[in-house]
Amino acid sequence: MTDRPREIETLIEMMARLPGLGPRSARRAVLHLVKKRAVLLVPLAQAMQQAAETARECQCCGNITTTEICEICTDPERTTGTICVVEDVADLWAIERGGVFKGRYHVLGGTLSALDAVGPDELRIPTLAARVRDEGISEVILALNATVDGQTTAHYIADALADTGVTLTSLAQGVPIGGELDYLDDGTISAALKARKGF
Amino acid sequence: MTDRPREIETLIEMMARLPGLGPRSARRAVLHLVKKRAVLLVPLAQAMQQAAETARECQCCGNITTTEICEICTDPERTTGTICVVEDVADLWAIERGGVFKGRYHVLGGTLSALDAVGPDELRIPTLAARVRDEGISEVILALNATVDGQTTAHYIADALADTGVTLTSLAQGVPIGGELDYLDDGTISAALKARKGF
Ligand SMILES: [Zn+2]
Ligand SMILES: [Zn+2]
Repeated sequence: MTDRPREIETLIEMMARLPGLGPRSARRAVLHLVKKRAVLLVPLAQAMQQAAETARECQCCGNITTTEICEICTDPERTTGTICVVEDVADLWAIERGGVFKGRYHVLGGTLSALDAVGPDELRIPTLAARVRDEGISEVILALNATVDGQTTAHYIADALADTGVTLTSLAQGVPIGGELDYLDDGTISAALKARKGF
Repeated sequence: MTDRPREIETLIEMMARLPGLGPRSARRAVLHLVKKRAVLLVPLAQAMQQAAETARECQCCGNITTTEICEICTDPERTTGTICVVEDVADLWAIERGGVFKGRYHVLGGTLSALDAVGPDELRIPTLAARVRDEGISEVILALNATVDGQTTAHYIADALADTGVTLTSLAQGVPIGGELDYLDDGTISAALKARKGF
């Protein structure tokens, strides 16, 4: 379609690359943005600029933060002996919505995958072992997705941490087979977390 | 959720206000953006900034443009005697995807609606009558949605243009009852346009 201004076309193409948006919803979103230029497009452009300038990975746990170490890692109210290992920041957010877990996190940044050639060093696994030793961790909750790759990764981490003597737990039954944490309702996650069992 | 940095929270809230995105898809989109900061977040922020600075309404037809008069209105290859009236720029884009119509457009910016208190002066109806007189228009295609408000608006425009002597047509059967143009496949719209009938 050649009769759309280049600036609009570019914006539609970039929006269409977001997860959950296709070409059609990208077109509708952009039209909406242009119509609400002052109250939506301008502030959203600024918010993106701000996020681009400030967002980074927590040097300790991999959470998204705007400081060197994230607010969860530095929160004195949170317990220090337990680390909850998740694949992704979306999973951390999902568990936080439940409001049950009061320890710290470790965001792997994915799962081991032979198919995608993701090995332990592509993930935040070496630093997890270091944290368990250095921070006096007594329990590691392996809150990975109930997928083949998620469970393969959980077993790999369990092996890697075996000689540290740390207690390994996983989420209780309640997480459906093949279920991804970020798709579950908050209550299910909290219940599974409370009833967590030895791994 | 207080443990998310303010900049990220703001971005999620604004993204959630886009049509087709809820809180969950906004969270996923923002995570994706932050992970792909260099290749997606930064360019998207710039594209939004650019669109915010340049996008405006065509002073002639209401299309989105970056110039005073849009590329369709100024295209010498397009025929000048026919105006296709649409509710929204999304409908103009949908018809352009069909590639059949070679005339000009007039974007109303909505439909008459007693419920929402939208009268003729809130829409681009007075300027349509002026264009029909000034541009020597012989045919006005009323390509409004097959909804109650769309058809009410079409009848209102037909009355308003009655004394100009212009030929009024509407899209042929093929547009389903209650169907919105932007949701139809391109072939359906083109077929309905080719087989358009007197209004
Ligand atoms: Zn952290
Ligand atoms: Zn125009």
